[in-house]
Amino acid sequence: MVKGAAVTQESYLLHEDPFSGNCYKIRLTAALLGLPVERRFYDILKGETRTPEFLAQVNANGRIPVLEITTGEAKRFLPESNAACWYLADGSDLIPKDRFAQADMLRWMFFEQYNHEPNVATLRFWLSHIGEPNLSPEQQAMIPAKRANGDAALRLMDEHLARQDWFVGDSITLADIALYAYTHVAEAGGFALGDYPALSRWLDRVAQVSGYIPMA
Amino acid sequence: MVKGAAVTQESYLLHEDPFSGNCYKIRLTAALLGLPVERRFYDILKGETRTPEFLAQVNANGRIPVLEITTGEAKRFLPESNAACWYLADGSDLIPKDRFAQADMLRWMFFEQYNHEPNVATLRFWLSHIGEPNLSPEQQAMIPAKRANGDAALRLMDEHLARQDWFVGDSITLADIALYAYTHVAEAGGFALGDYPALSRWLDRVAQVSGYIPMA
Repeated sequence: MVKGAAVTQESYLLHEDPFSGNCYKIRLTAALLGLPVERRFYDILKGETRTPEFLAQVNANGRIPVLEITTGEAKRFLPESNAACWYLADGSDLIPKDRFAQADMLRWMFFEQYNHEPNVATLRFWLSHIGEPNLSPEQQAMIPAKRANGDAALRLMDEHLARQDWFVGDSITLADIALYAYTHVAEAGGFALGDYPALSRWLDRVAQVSGYIPMA
Repeated sequence: MVKGAAVTQESYLLHEDPFSGNCYKIRLTAALLGLPVERRFYDILKGETRTPEFLAQVNANGRIPVLEITTGEAKRFLPESNAACWYLADGSDLIPKDRFAQADMLRWMFFEQYNHEPNVATLRFWLSHIGEPNLSPEQQAMIPAKRANGDAALRLMDEHLARQDWFVGDSITLADIALYAYTHVAEAGGFALGDYPALSRWLDRVAQVSGYIPMA
């Protein structure tokens, strides 16, 4: 278990879809910190995160995950997976204390949302959840670019991990958790993880961390 | 000027393109903090961030901005605009101290990179920098979706800003800076800012902050 999770009177409810790697990030962070999180499930494909109730009460952006934080009578809602991980991990060893290392960890988390997720996660969603024949012509036309950009993100990660065991510093941080979530299931999007040996060793390393839970 | 910037022996060099809103975020953050930043210019369209030298020495991801931080003999390189802003603003009033407010600020910064930048900034780049006739058929086919998603992001911001003056808390934070950069030039991407009155008032508010510098 990672040290240093905040001791609070809070309780946590995760609004999520168990298929979503973004939701898994938050559950994995909480598991490594030993924090219990209740779960409420939504089916994105059935529009369950676009209902008037969801938009008014949980997230006006119509997306999951959202971390609901209850303190006494007060409820607060935090969208965006990486922000929810940051909240849970506040003060723990999952966030480096050093100024540069902390910013460098955020660097990889922004990279994940900008360069990795829209390619690696989207192709998994399209190919293994929606199914290629059901994609629109516009989506089908975007597959080659997403394939190339996803492989570029995986290659950059592999080169980095050939030089060090963890993305930042010498132990697991939120950067590893954020990047692990969709990378370890990237083959469902047609990516060949065997092409990335250092990255594959890092996937094994994450799965060995005390407190680790699998996605499914 | 915002209070609390770290006093260090560091100097900063920004590897940037002056057309880029992501680069401007870092310059605006530094200006509000009273930190001097040297600038080195690259032309993305000429491939100047994809040279072997740039990839080896500045950013293996081939992108700007990158903040180069020099401390004595040591040089460190920090890619990702929002991470560089975080580094510069460490300890200042641009980052809330409260645990939830800090995570909520990061929420808006991840929203910016995922929901806003790929739509609002990309249409500006395509339409006012590359030119619509020069776009590939795949890019042209993506314009309607990027228009709709960009307007959805601006509408969400407008609804939030109808209830409060700043994205988080009661003064400017990095969330405002990150979202301001591409929003205030969104008309160059064909977005009608007049459709968003609360957002338009917020744009004026940001431009009144002590230490503000314009993009151009």
